[in-house]
Amino acid sequence: MTAQQKLDPATEAMLKSQKAGPSPDHIRKVFEDYGACMSRGDTDGILTLFAPDAYIEDPVGSGKQVGHAALRKFYQGGFDAMGGPLEMKLDGAVRVAGSNAAAAYIVKTLNHTEPFRVETLDVMTFNEQGLITSMLAYWGPSNISPLEK
Amino acid sequence: MTAQQKLDPATEAMLKSQKAGPSPDHIRKVFEDYGACMSRGDTDGILTLFAPDAYIEDPVGSGKQVGHAALRKFYQGGFDAMGGPLEMKLDGAVRVAGSNAAAAYIVKTLNHTEPFRVETLDVMTFNEQGLITSMLAYWGPSNISPLEK
Repeated sequence: MTAQQKLDPATEAMLKSQKAGPSPDHIRKVFEDYGACMSRGDTDGILTLFAPDAYIEDPVGSGKQVGHAALRKFYQGGFDAMGGPLEMKLDGAVRVAGSNAAAAYIVKTLNHTEPFRVETLDVMTFNEQGLITSMLAYWGPSNISPLEK
Repeated sequence: MTAQQKLDPATEAMLKSQKAGPSPDHIRKVFEDYGACMSRGDTDGILTLFAPDAYIEDPVGSGKQVGHAALRKFYQGGFDAMGGPLEMKLDGAVRVAGSNAAAAYIVKTLNHTEPFRVETLDVMTFNEQGLITSMLAYWGPSNISPLEK
């Protein structure tokens, strides 16, 4: 939004109560970095984005993984199961509501014997240091489709 | 996902614990209907999608609105403030994780004196009857841009 743009009072009122958080630019960059780390299979890089006590649930409904040790096991285990990195690209703009944000991604297997594509969508919360405190991933069977080998 | 497609055990394991909910097709249609009702300013139509005790927070951080009476006031108040309906179209696929789902939208004002566009993203939960039990909308100032008049 440009600084000059006038919003109507109703829209202003809806926004003014959002808790301040890290800048939208920082949050957008974390979503980009997360996808880049996934795309090169960089578990250490992923962990640098998360607060020490952060939790994830990927996909929603599968149970929470809490803390760096559990996250390391989850991400490294995922790369191991998939034969390496997964291409992960933003699918549209990152939506930022204060210290909460969400964005859609497209994930593609790169080294899997039965290649597939997943439409996923991650909701993240951030602390004042700009680290991810939670990540919930929305995807299921209806979002998976086979890729040409 | 086609019934024939084989998933690796790791992906199967991530999905099997998702609570069953309404079908992905139903959930996708609710997201489409929600956008269609917004686009014609149909407050009654919006309310038919929600369980009686549903709550919304739009945007996240602005406080919850609980129950049909509060939702009616919120949506009708929004249409009144915007001079009528808001065009609301899905921006990518609806992601369905059991009874939880999320999708990005693009919203455009249709009758506003200072027309603008908002990239938003809604996370919804559903009950067994297929009604929305909660809706959280992710958007903020960085997702608003002016439109040509």
